[in-house]
Amino acid sequence: MRTFRLTLAYDGTRLEGWQRQPRGRTVQGEIEATLRKITGEKIRVIGAGRTDSGVHAQGQVAHAVLRTRLSPAVLQRALNALLPSDILVRSVRIAPSHFHARFNARSKHYRYTLWNHPLRPLFDRDRLHHVPDPLDLAAMRRAARLLRGKHDFRAFCSEPAKASGAVRHLRRLSIQRQGPRITIDAEGDGFLYHMVRRLAGHLIEIGKGRSPAIAPTAPAGGLCLIKVRYSPKKHPAEFSS
Amino acid sequence: MRTFRLTLAYDGTRLEGWQRQPRGRTVQGEIEATLRKITGEKIRVIGAGRTDSGVHAQGQVAHAVLRTRLSPAVLQRALNALLPSDILVRSVRIAPSHFHARFNARSKHYRYTLWNHPLRPLFDRDRLHHVPDPLDLAAMRRAARLLRGKHDFRAFCSEPAKASGAVRHLRRLSIQRQGPRITIDAEGDGFLYHMVRRLAGHLIEIGKGRSPAIAPTAPAGGLCLIKVRYSPKKHPAEFSS
Repeated sequence: MRTFRLTLAYDGTRLEGWQRQPRGRTVQGEIEATLRKITGEKIRVIGAGRTDSGVHAQGQVAHAVLRTRLSPAVLQRALNALLPSDILVRSVRIAPSHFHARFNARSKHYRYTLWNHPLRPLFDRDRLHHVPDPLDLAAMRRAARLLRGKHDFRAFCSEPAKASGAVRHLRRLSIQRQGPRITIDAEGDGFLYHMVRRLAGHLIEIGKGRSPAIAPTAPAGGLCLIKVRYSPKKHPAEFSS
Repeated sequence: MRTFRLTLAYDGTRLEGWQRQPRGRTVQGEIEATLRKITGEKIRVIGAGRTDSGVHAQGQVAHAVLRTRLSPAVLQRALNALLPSDILVRSVRIAPSHFHARFNARSKHYRYTLWNHPLRPLFDRDRLHHVPDPLDLAAMRRAARLLRGKHDFRAFCSEPAKASGAVRHLRRLSIQRQGPRITIDAEGDGFLYHMVRRLAGHLIEIGKGRSPAIAPTAPAGGLCLIKVRYSPKKHPAEFSS
């Protein structure tokens, strides 16, 4: 038995999110079904973050414990040949046997992207949130500065606060503009349900000159999971593939 | 009656090409139907080039003769509000009454884009042709140099040669690489049926080290109509909107 670590990218537009469901195509469901076709093993794939329907990923990380003797490179080629075109396996490697994609994740980097132009976007329309109104970026950046750091973020969560609390450490919340494209980068040790989309919704309202009492949830399509970070390797030898 | 000149962009993935058809969504059909909703006029829209199913456009040009008193800016906003999300009107202006999008076109610029990487593309997969094999760009550029200029291109046409002949002037055929993305730019006074896709197919074969007897037709999704050029304005006053 070996633990395989997979780095995945997906276009969430026509997927019902990460988590397996009785109905509808999900990333977890598609990968588990494809691994079963390749190896004959009925296994479970654990992802670092359970992205919602419509949310994309460039660097989702998942792990699976498999009996297969296939090499990581062969497994990757087989997965990419059989997976639907909206899911791509960017890399496969052998991880230490105790590696857990979710529990070992040290931080996640999400990006929310706006299209700030009077004309709606065309080719990237499923990955951009169109905001035709002019935005006050200086005001958005001031608001972002106040949100950075360790806070109780329950006002940015779409679920009732759990006993585990809503305190999270938001290490980065930065805003960049490149032409009509505005990216909001959020990085932290963990995020509450809808938290990045509500941070984005809040900042957009601020940019329009409003002070929202309740942070609106920006649409799913603008959101992408860019990268999941893990602690530095403790036993480098264990990581070799 | 005024002649309106429209610059259009579209994502051809889920469109049956430019030309109106009894069944299926086409760019011409969608624009004519939307103009009718807005103005009540049952008119015909003429495009510079009839792109095939799956082919995209960044700068298709079309004209329509309309009775409406709406300003070009209002007509553009109404079109973009009502058109499906895969068609965008980038600009509307008043043209001289004799302006004809097809007959007055002096040259067209098409771009064919390859994704030259072992991993298939993800987000832009409908606008790229995946070529996993390494390509000899120097050989492709040498072949392109021989194809530039005025030639009989019937070997690159998917229809029997017409009486009007197959001589075309290919002013530009250039190849650029940026990381895994390779663009083939073709500009000329006119193109035969499937000509750009067969030029691309031919150059790809050359890049793989083969000398194809018959130029294969590269897939539609890699092709985009970038720009249509018209002769310099003769009567600038006529062009004001």
